[in-house]
Amino acid sequence: MIKTDILIIGAGPTGLFTVFEAGLLKLKCHLIDALPQPGGQCSEIYPKKPIYDIPGFPEILAGDLTRNLLEQGKQFEPGFTLGERAETIEKQDDGSFIVTTNKGTKHHAPVVAIAGGLGSFEPRKPAIDGLADYEDNGVEYIIKDPEFYRDKKVVISGGGDSALDWSIFLTDVASEVTLIHRRNEFRGALDSVEKVRELTQEGKINLVTPAEVKELHGDGKIEAVTYEMEGESVRIETDHFVPLFGLSPKLGPIGNWGLEIEKNAIKVDNTLNYQTNIPGIFAIGDVNTYPEKLKLILCGFHEATLMCQAAYRIINPGKKYVLKYTTVSGIDGFDGSRKEAPKAVVQAIN
Amino acid sequence: MIKTDILIIGAGPTGLFTVFEAGLLKLKCHLIDALPQPGGQCSEIYPKKPIYDIPGFPEILAGDLTRNLLEQGKQFEPGFTLGERAETIEKQDDGSFIVTTNKGTKHHAPVVAIAGGLGSFEPRKPAIDGLADYEDNGVEYIIKDPEFYRDKKVVISGGGDSALDWSIFLTDVASEVTLIHRRNEFRGALDSVEKVRELTQEGKINLVTPAEVKELHGDGKIEAVTYEMEGESVRIETDHFVPLFGLSPKLGPIGNWGLEIEKNAIKVDNTLNYQTNIPGIFAIGDVNTYPEKLKLILCGFHEATLMCQAAYRIINPGKKYVLKYTTVSGIDGFDGSRKEAPKAVVQAIN
Repeated sequence: MIKTDILIIGAGPTGLFTVFEAGLLKLKCHLIDALPQPGGQCSEIYPKKPIYDIPGFPEILAGDLTRNLLEQGKQFEPGFTLGERAETIEKQDDGSFIVTTNKGTKHHAPVVAIAGGLGSFEPRKPAIDGLADYEDNGVEYIIKDPEFYRDKKVVISGGGDSALDWSIFLTDVASEVTLIHRRNEFRGALDSVEKVRELTQEGKINLVTPAEVKELHGDGKIEAVTYEMEGESVRIETDHFVPLFGLSPKLGPIGNWGLEIEKNAIKVDNTLNYQTNIPGIFAIGDVNTYPEKLKLILCGFHEATLMCQAAYRIINPGKKYVLKYTTVSGIDGFDGSRKEAPKAVVQAIN
Repeated sequence: MIKTDILIIGAGPTGLFTVFEAGLLKLKCHLIDALPQPGGQCSEIYPKKPIYDIPGFPEILAGDLTRNLLEQGKQFEPGFTLGERAETIEKQDDGSFIVTTNKGTKHHAPVVAIAGGLGSFEPRKPAIDGLADYEDNGVEYIIKDPEFYRDKKVVISGGGDSALDWSIFLTDVASEVTLIHRRNEFRGALDSVEKVRELTQEGKINLVTPAEVKELHGDGKIEAVTYEMEGESVRIETDHFVPLFGLSPKLGPIGNWGLEIEKNAIKVDNTLNYQTNIPGIFAIGDVNTYPEKLKLILCGFHEATLMCQAAYRIINPGKKYVLKYTTVSGIDGFDGSRKEAPKAVVQAIN
């Protein structure tokens, strides 16, 4: 059982900044995230994209923001449970919570802060009859290990960077690579588009456009797919069908925790500390909703900061916290480190 | 008459970031500040001090934060009225406002955002009988132009950096410099303290500690002061008495604008957009108060952002604004500039 003061669900920018603000109040944090690394969307979906609206940064790459936030909080020694999804929550008699992940890891904390962003990212699936039946039997939505496709026939569908990049990569691994896309145009990095063009001319990629996969065939396992191209149906043999249509966010199991939900987001009380309808559970950042809510990273920072004050009072009942400015009081890390502004010298002249 | 969309009172970090957020909504801003440069306290009081709790900056000097915020907003071409204090506000029949400064500069805007921080900084004054009578007649609280003291006798009192630094500086300008402080110890940079010690040994500064100025003398103009030292009263001739006891924030004339005030701060509605009791006037950053308010820069950023949405609706009645992400849509400056993330290439392969 992992024990902490504030259990944060979601290790995106809002969750990461919570570590820092909680640390100033001497509260310890542990973060759970379904992704294998911290940073949320910023790390997983657009690490190389510039963000222009983080206050004080005329421009910052999403990946750099993640690194900075990790650095800012590191003296408060957060714990991480990564690559696991928070699945269930149980309220204990003393008001604390136990959160269990899909892999069975248990976490115990008096305060839970859901900083789940738009939810966990799940693959967009094409509407093809019987698709779900073949999942893990020749249908994959994410390529985890390219070696899995060694000497196999693979049909990839999609028109973006990951369809292009994996088609290129698998030409060296798979015995046959077919790339099917419903348009002639691809949306991806210039060199990827050109590389696919080249490999197609060399006969290493079998490019089929504009076409759509319509049927799957096979006895328990994919053996062939049928695609439609300009009104004609064509059946080709394959060992794998890999639709790469991007990821779409889902609130996931948190949706069943008894929290008040509105428009796929968790309702919170913005008049005070962004608490949900369940005392002790807060929702901060893009995952929450309230009148005039804006889904911006900078708003998550504010919400996290106010939430930590409420967490402090739950964890230290009756104790009063007086806000201290870091510029004046400095920062004492849980690791024994100390940061502080250089002090003026006090000295007698005589 | 200066015309703008959002008239911002206070050019500290919250006011400066408002320029950026308003710009994204195509709203133009003009800022008034009593200080001669933008940045508020960050520039005036502690430009060289590190701040540790700006999200994404493990450490940033206050002066650098100001520079970054100016850079972030500059494509939205804010206007500035600096070195003037917003004095009066008049509501017009159409709901807009005219704000006039102490120097008579008039500003007209449909929305006013008070981002006045802790207020305008006014000098702390020692409690000496008749002090006010000599203001501008030999008593100054801020040294604006050292040449004013050329070949004059000057008594400075105070024990901090500005008392030390001005005493040093004026030895080359004034005919006589006396530094009076109620303790033997000075609080200032090491090299300033040592320089004063040196100049005292050389006879260029007349250092009097521990002592306090108790009386002022002169017919309409300062001619002498009396200080008390170890129970004895000593009278010395001087042309100027300059108490440098630091600056203290005052809400100032804004306190008389009919706004609801609580604990020297302006009450706002935090359930929506930080509007005050007067529709069209908002208060953001350290100047406002609401349940669970924290006077932190990062909270000002959030409040400014939500306020801009309300300003948009006041200025564009009936028009709906759909939030666009800068990462996706880029930024179009009012100066014709454009910032955007590198786009994926859309290209046909055939």
